[in-house]
Amino acid sequence: MTDHSNQARLGVGLVGHSFMGAVHSQAWRTAPHFFDLSLAPSMTALAGRDADRAEQAANKLGWSSSTDDWKSLLGRDDIDVIDVCTPGDTHAEITIAALEAGKHVLCEKPLANTVDEAKAMVAAADKAAGSGVRSMVGFNYRRAPALALARKLVADGRLGAIRHVRASYLQDFIVDPEFPMMWRLQAERAGSGALGDIGAHIIDLAQYLTDDLLAGVSALTETFIKERPLPEGASSGLAKGTSSMETGEVTVDDAALFFGRFGGGAIGSFEATRFATGRKNAMRIELNGSDGSLAFDFESMNELWFYDNRIDDAEGGFRRILATEPGHPYVDVWWPPGHGLGYEHTFSHEVYDFVEAVARDRDPSPSFADGLQVQQVLEAVQSSAADESRWTEIPKRGVGAV
Amino acid sequence: MTDHSNQARLGVGLVGHSFMGAVHSQAWRTAPHFFDLSLAPSMTALAGRDADRAEQAANKLGWSSSTDDWKSLLGRDDIDVIDVCTPGDTHAEITIAALEAGKHVLCEKPLANTVDEAKAMVAAADKAAGSGVRSMVGFNYRRAPALALARKLVADGRLGAIRHVRASYLQDFIVDPEFPMMWRLQAERAGSGALGDIGAHIIDLAQYLTDDLLAGVSALTETFIKERPLPEGASSGLAKGTSSMETGEVTVDDAALFFGRFGGGAIGSFEATRFATGRKNAMRIELNGSDGSLAFDFESMNELWFYDNRIDDAEGGFRRILATEPGHPYVDVWWPPGHGLGYEHTFSHEVYDFVEAVARDRDPSPSFADGLQVQQVLEAVQSSAADESRWTEIPKRGVGAV
Amino acid sequence: MTDHSNQARLGVGLVGHSFMGAVHSQAWRTAPHFFDLSLAPSMTALAGRDADRAEQAANKLGWSSSTDDWKSLLGRDDIDVIDVCTPGDTHAEITIAALEAGKHVLCEKPLANTVDEAKAMVAAADKAAGSGVRSMVGFNYRRAPALALARKLVADGRLGAIRHVRASYLQDFIVDPEFPMMWRLQAERAGSGALGDIGAHIIDLAQYLTDDLLAGVSALTETFIKERPLPEGASSGLAKGTSSMETGEVTVDDAALFFGRFGGGAIGSFEATRFATGRKNAMRIELNGSDGSLAFDFESMNELWFYDNRIDDAEGGFRRILATEPGHPYVDVWWPPGHGLGYEHTFSHEVYDFVEAVARDRDPSPSFADGLQVQQVLEAVQSSAADESRWTEIPKRGVGAV
Amino acid sequence: MTDHSNQARLGVGLVGHSFMGAVHSQAWRTAPHFFDLSLAPSMTALAGRDADRAEQAANKLGWSSSTDDWKSLLGRDDIDVIDVCTPGDTHAEITIAALEAGKHVLCEKPLANTVDEAKAMVAAADKAAGSGVRSMVGFNYRRAPALALARKLVADGRLGAIRHVRASYLQDFIVDPEFPMMWRLQAERAGSGALGDIGAHIIDLAQYLTDDLLAGVSALTETFIKERPLPEGASSGLAKGTSSMETGEVTVDDAALFFGRFGGGAIGSFEATRFATGRKNAMRIELNGSDGSLAFDFESMNELWFYDNRIDDAEGGFRRILATEPGHPYVDVWWPPGHGLGYEHTFSHEVYDFVEAVARDRDPSPSFADGLQVQQVLEAVQSSAADESRWTEIPKRGVGAV
Repeated sequence: MTDHSNQARLGVGLVGHSFMGAVHSQAWRTAPHFFDLSLAPSMTALAGRDADRAEQAANKLGWSSSTDDWKSLLGRDDIDVIDVCTPGDTHAEITIAALEAGKHVLCEKPLANTVDEAKAMVAAADKAAGSGVRSMVGFNYRRAPALALARKLVADGRLGAIRHVRASYLQDFIVDPEFPMMWRLQAERAGSGALGDIGAHIIDLAQYLTDDLLAGVSALTETFIKERPLPEGASSGLAKGTSSMETGEVTVDDAALFFGRFGGGAIGSFEATRFATGRKNAMRIELNGSDGSLAFDFESMNELWFYDNRIDDAEGGFRRILATEPGHPYVDVWWPPGHGLGYEHTFSHEVYDFVEAVARDRDPSPSFADGLQVQQVLEAVQSSAADESRWTEIPKRGVGAV
Repeated sequence: MTDHSNQARLGVGLVGHSFMGAVHSQAWRTAPHFFDLSLAPSMTALAGRDADRAEQAANKLGWSSSTDDWKSLLGRDDIDVIDVCTPGDTHAEITIAALEAGKHVLCEKPLANTVDEAKAMVAAADKAAGSGVRSMVGFNYRRAPALALARKLVADGRLGAIRHVRASYLQDFIVDPEFPMMWRLQAERAGSGALGDIGAHIIDLAQYLTDDLLAGVSALTETFIKERPLPEGASSGLAKGTSSMETGEVTVDDAALFFGRFGGGAIGSFEATRFATGRKNAMRIELNGSDGSLAFDFESMNELWFYDNRIDDAEGGFRRILATEPGHPYVDVWWPPGHGLGYEHTFSHEVYDFVEAVARDRDPSPSFADGLQVQQVLEAVQSSAADESRWTEIPKRGVGAV
Repeated sequence: MTDHSNQARLGVGLVGHSFMGAVHSQAWRTAPHFFDLSLAPSMTALAGRDADRAEQAANKLGWSSSTDDWKSLLGRDDIDVIDVCTPGDTHAEITIAALEAGKHVLCEKPLANTVDEAKAMVAAADKAAGSGVRSMVGFNYRRAPALALARKLVADGRLGAIRHVRASYLQDFIVDPEFPMMWRLQAERAGSGALGDIGAHIIDLAQYLTDDLLAGVSALTETFIKERPLPEGASSGLAKGTSSMETGEVTVDDAALFFGRFGGGAIGSFEATRFATGRKNAMRIELNGSDGSLAFDFESMNELWFYDNRIDDAEGGFRRILATEPGHPYVDVWWPPGHGLGYEHTFSHEVYDFVEAVARDRDPSPSFADGLQVQQVLEAVQSSAADESRWTEIPKRGVGAV
Repeated sequence: MTDHSNQARLGVGLVGHSFMGAVHSQAWRTAPHFFDLSLAPSMTALAGRDADRAEQAANKLGWSSSTDDWKSLLGRDDIDVIDVCTPGDTHAEITIAALEAGKHVLCEKPLANTVDEAKAMVAAADKAAGSGVRSMVGFNYRRAPALALARKLVADGRLGAIRHVRASYLQDFIVDPEFPMMWRLQAERAGSGALGDIGAHIIDLAQYLTDDLLAGVSALTETFIKERPLPEGASSGLAKGTSSMETGEVTVDDAALFFGRFGGGAIGSFEATRFATGRKNAMRIELNGSDGSLAFDFESMNELWFYDNRIDDAEGGFRRILATEPGHPYVDVWWPPGHGLGYEHTFSHEVYDFVEAVARDRDPSPSFADGLQVQQVLEAVQSSAADESRWTEIPKRGVGAV
C-alpha cells in the first residue's frame, strides 16, 4: 500500500460472516499493511442470509456495505472477488455463479459437500480461467510459516525418500453429550463431520507436503453421540425437519480413522476427531524420510521439528525450529525472531498469495482441482468406512475429473 | 464498532514508526473489529523525524496524515491520544508536552532513560489526571492471555504464599560481533541495553504477577562485545560523535544478572541478555508458591504451566493450559480453542484497555508511577552492578517519588 | 532379602543371552535388593546354543553355570524357573517342555510366531497350572511406573468411557539400507517384523490399559527395503538357505499400520515401524475418554500426561506427572521423587511380580492366554494386510482357544 | 568380569547405608556386569552406627558383612576401598583415617562441611597419592551420559566462547511446613541446606562443563520455614540438644541464589532451592556460547538440547539429542537407542571410572582438590549472603590451598 496512485483497486465481496467470515475479514484488512500487494483490496460488501445480521456484521468486521442477497454482489462493477465463507452445501451454487459472472473466487474448504458438486465447480473454474478469472480453495494451513518451511525442506530433498506420513487432527469441542446440535453435525449441511471439517486439512497437507497423492485408503468412522439437544430456536440455522424435535440426530462422523498408500510409495495414517479430550486444535503431521523427518503440531504453530539424518547419530536429534526468522516463508514482513504469529496470519498469507496471483495473471494454489481431489479422498474414506473398511482407490488426478 | 452513531471518535497521533510504531498501528486498526470499544479510534496522524519517511510509513501503516513535527500533533483538535513509540531519550519531552496539551498518552516502555525523567513524567501525569487526562505505559506482555490468566490465578490465591520468582528474558540477536552498531547499543539513546529493553519487561511482570514490589537487589552487568562496526551512513540514527569512526563503542550492557527480595518475603532471580545463543524471544517467568507454581515462556506464548500443589502428589504435575479458551482473559473475542494468538495481540489488548479507561474515566494500568518504579529498579540494578554488586535498596513506592 | 533364613530359594535357568538375556539378568540380580521378595532368586544356570559363548555370557551376566543344552536345565532340581529369552521360533518348544517338567516359565514376547504355537503353549500352561506351575509372558512395559499408573487411573474411572486409543511404536534402526540382514528380518525366525517385535507391545498395552479387547482390525503392512546385505559369517544365526547369497531377502514387514474396534466401543489406531527416522524408541499411547485423557511416550518414560476433563476448562490442561513419587506403582523401593528410572526397571518389576505370584500361588499376569490373544491380533493384522486391508475379526477370548 | 582368573579382587567397605549407601551398593553390584573392569569389586563390608540396622542393611543391600565400627574396616586386608556415604560432618574424619590406612577413598559430595575440613582432606589425599592411594569425590551427575556428552561438545569447541552459564537445582520436598526436622536441616550436621546438598552439584557441573572456575560471587540465602516439628524419637539421628523440644530450629538455607564471574569471562547465575513447588529433581544447566548452546534438565536426564549456531538461521533450533546412542559416553554397554537409563546409572559409571583409575594407577576425577574448590565456592556464597550480598572472591585454585 506504499503508493496508492500506482495500485489498482481490488473490490472484495464476502459471503458468510461467522467464524470464517470474521477471520477472512481480518486477513483482508491486515495483509495490505504488511505485504507489498500489487492490488489494493477494498472490503466492499458483505452478504448474509439475514439483512440485519449482515449489516451488524459488516459494521463489526469492517465492510463498506451489506446485503441479504449474495447474488446482488455478482452484478456490481466495484466487486472483483467473491470470498465464499458459507457452509459447504452452498459452495457450488455461489462459486459457479460468481465465476460465470467473471468474479475471481476464494472458496473455503472443503471445496464442496460431494464429488459431483466439486466436479461442477472445477468445470466452472476451468472455463472461467480461459478469461483470466482465478479461483482458489482455502486450505489456509499450508501458509503457516512452519508448514511452508516444511514444504520447502521436502522440496529441497532434505528428507530423501518419504516413507511415512502420520497425520492427525484432534479436537474435543463436542465431547460433552449436551453440546447442542448445529449445522456442522448434519450431513445435509456439512457433508461429513470431523472428516470434512478437519480431516480435509490433513489430507491436503499430507499431499501438499509430500508433493504426492493418495492412491487408496481403508477407513473407519464412528459417531459416539448419536442424538444431541436442539438449541433454542434452532430451526433457522439447521436443515429442515429438525426443528420440532427436542433432540436431533447427528448424521455425520464424530471421528474418522484411515490409512492409505501414496502414489510414490509412502504409507500414511490419518485421524480426524472431535472427541480427543484435551486436544484443542492439535493438527499434527509427521513425515519420515530416508534422510530426515519433520513434525508439526498446530497447538505450537510457530515450531517445526526437523531431524536431519545426515548428521552423525551422536549429535542427531529433533530440532525445534522457531519458524519466526526473516528467512522463513512469509515471516520477513512481521516481527523479530521469536515474536510468534497466530492462527489468523495463515489467512493474511492466503490473501497475499491470492491477490498476487490475480494481479500477475497466474493460477493461485491450491486450485479447485486440488480441492476436488481432496473431495475424492473424503468420498473414498466414507465409501470404505461404509463397506467394512474395504480398500478403496482414489481416482487418478485428471482422469475423468469432469 | 457495532453502532457508529453512538460511538464517539478518539483521534490518535502516533510518534515513531519503526518496530513499535508498526505493531501499535496494527493494534489500533484491529482492536475495534474485535472488542466492543466505547470510543472509535481514528488513526489520524503519524509523526516521524523525516517527512518523506513519515509519509511512506503513514501510507504503509494506515494513518491518515503524516508530519515531521510531532509538536504539531498537540495542537490538533482531532487528536485525543498521543501514542509514543520513539526511543527512550525522547519519552520525557514528548509525553510531558502531550499531557500539558491535554492529550491522553500511551507511552512505550521503559518509561524513560533515567529516574529523573520518569519522575518528571509522573508529575506531569498526576497533574493532567486532575483534568481527566489519562496516561499508561506499554508493558504489553501483561496482556498476553496466558500471563493475564497467571495474574488471575495468583490473585485468586491459587499459589498461596509466593516464595520464588525466577525470571529471564533471553535473546540472541547480537551474538555475532559483526552485528552493527545501532541506537539500542548506545547509553545516550537507549539508557541501558538488555536491562532496559527486555529486563524492564520481566521486572514489571514479576511485580505485576506477584502484586508485590522489589525491595532491594544485587546485580552484575556485562558487555561482551565492546566495539561494533558502524552501519553505512550511520550518523543520522545514532547519537552524535559516532559517525566518523569505523567502529562504535557499545556503551550499554549486553547482559544483566540480578537477584532481589520482594517486600512480601519472596526472593527472585532475574536475567536479561542478548547473548543467549538460540533463544529468540524467551521471556520466561516462574513463580513458586506454597500452594502451587506457574511457568511461562513467551516462545510458547499461548501456554501457561500450572502446578496445583493441592492435588494429591500421585496425580500432581505441571499442567499445560492452552490459554485459548473463551474463559481466559481477552480470548472470547478471538478464535476457537487451540487457535493461538500472536505477539501483536498483546498490543490489541492494550489498546482495548486503554480506550476503555479513557472512555470510562478511570486510570489505565500500568500507570506512569508503575513505570517510574520499574525505572527505579533499573537504576538500582545499574548502581549495584557499578559498585561490585553491592546490595541496593529500591525506594518505596510513593516515598519522595516526585 | 531381609531375612535369608525365612526365605526359600528360587532357582532360575535362563535360555538365551543376547539383548533380552542381558536385561533379564540385570532384573534377576537387582529385584531382590529392592523389593521384599518372598522367595530368594538364585541365578543358577544360563543356556545358549554355543558352549563357549554361553560360558562367557554366564560370567558376564552373573549366572553360576552355563550349558549349550537348554533341555539339561529341565532335569535339574535346583532350577525352579525357566526364563525364555530366545527368538520366537523356539518359544513353543522350550516353554512346553519346561512346563511339562514342572518348571515355572517366564517367556519373552511375542508369545510365539504363530497362533497355533501359542494355542499349544496355552494348553500346556493350563495343564501345568493344575499342578501349581505358573507361566507369564513378558510384556514388560506394563510395569513402567507411568503405565502402571495409567492403568490405575483408567481402572479408577478417571477417564470415563474410552473412545479413542492412539498407539504407535516408532523406531529407526534399519532406515539405512546397508543395515545387514539379521534374524529379526526373517519371517521364519521372527514370525513378523515391526509388527510382532514392537507392535505386539502396543497391542498388549492398548488392551491392558483399557481393560478391553480388540474385536476387529483392518491393516496394511510394508517392506521398504526388500534385500539387505548379509553379515560376515551370517549362516549360524540366520535361518537356513541364506548363507550363500550376498544379500538376503527381508521377509517381514518394516512397518504395519492398522486400526480397529474394541469390544466396548472404542476405536483405535496403531502403527509399528522401524522406519520412523529420528524416533529411537518412541512407544506412544494416548487414550481419550469422556472424562479425561492420558498420553505416554517411552522416550520420556518417567512421565505420564493426564488431562482431567472434570477440571474447569479455564484451568484444564495436560498435566506432566513425573511417575517417580512414592505413591506410584513400584516406585517406593527406588529413589526420591524426580530421580528417574530406566528401561531395565520394567524388568525388575516384572521379576518382582512373577516371584510373588509363584510364592503366593497365584497366576501372574499377563498370562499365556493374554499372549495368545495378542498373537491372534497379530495374525488378524497380517491376514487383513495380505487381503487388501479387509476387515478381519479377532476371535473372542476363550472361544475355541484350544 | 569376562575372565575372573586374570582379574584381581578389589574389596570395598561401605560406610553409611541410607539413600547414598543404597545407590552406591547398586552401582558396585551392577558395574561389573556391564563394564569390562580391570579389577573385580567385592562388596565386602558395610558399616553403620547401629549394629542391628547395619546388619539388616548389609543383607538388603548385598554386602558380605557388617559392623557398627567403621574404623574396623581400615584394618582389614580384604578391603581396598572405603566408600564414604555418611553425612558431611563425618567425611573428614573417615576419609583421612582411611587414606592414612592406605585405602582408596570414594567420598560423597559435598566433600566436607567446611573449607578447613576440606583442606585437611586434600592434604591427606595428596600425601596418600604418593603411595598410589587414590581418592575421588562423588559428583555423580558428571557421569550422566547427556552431561558427559555436553562436556565433550564443549571440549570439542562446538560452543565457541562461553558467555553464560545458567544453573538451577530445584526441588520441593520440604515445601510443607509440617515436613519434619531432619539432619539435612541442621547446620551442625549438614553444613548448609539446599546450597551444599544440591547447589554443590551445579557448581561442580558448571565448572566441569566449562572447564573454568568461578572467580567471585554475590549471593542471597533464605530460610522460609524456620521451625519444624521434630520427628518421633528424633534424638538419635539429629544433632544434640534438639530432642527435648517439640519443634526444632532449621539452621540451614532453604534456598540460595547467587551469580558470579568465571575466570575466562563468562557470567553465571545459580539457584538451589527446596521450595520450587512442583519441581522434583530439576537440576538444570544451560550454557550459551558464541557458536552454540546446550541445555539439560535432570528430570529428563536422557536428553541433551544442543543449538548449533553454525547452522543457517533458517534451519537452526535446539536439538533434542537422546543421549542413548552407542557413541555417547558410557552408553555402549547398556541398551539400544531410546531405551533410557536412570538416576542410579550415574553411580555405576562413577564406579567404573573409579575402579579403572585405581587399576591403572591414575588419579580419578573429580579429585578432592576439586571438592575443596567447590567447598570454597560454597563458603563464598555463605559469606556473601551473610554480608548483604557483598561481592566475594573465590581463592584461586592451588593458591594457599593447604
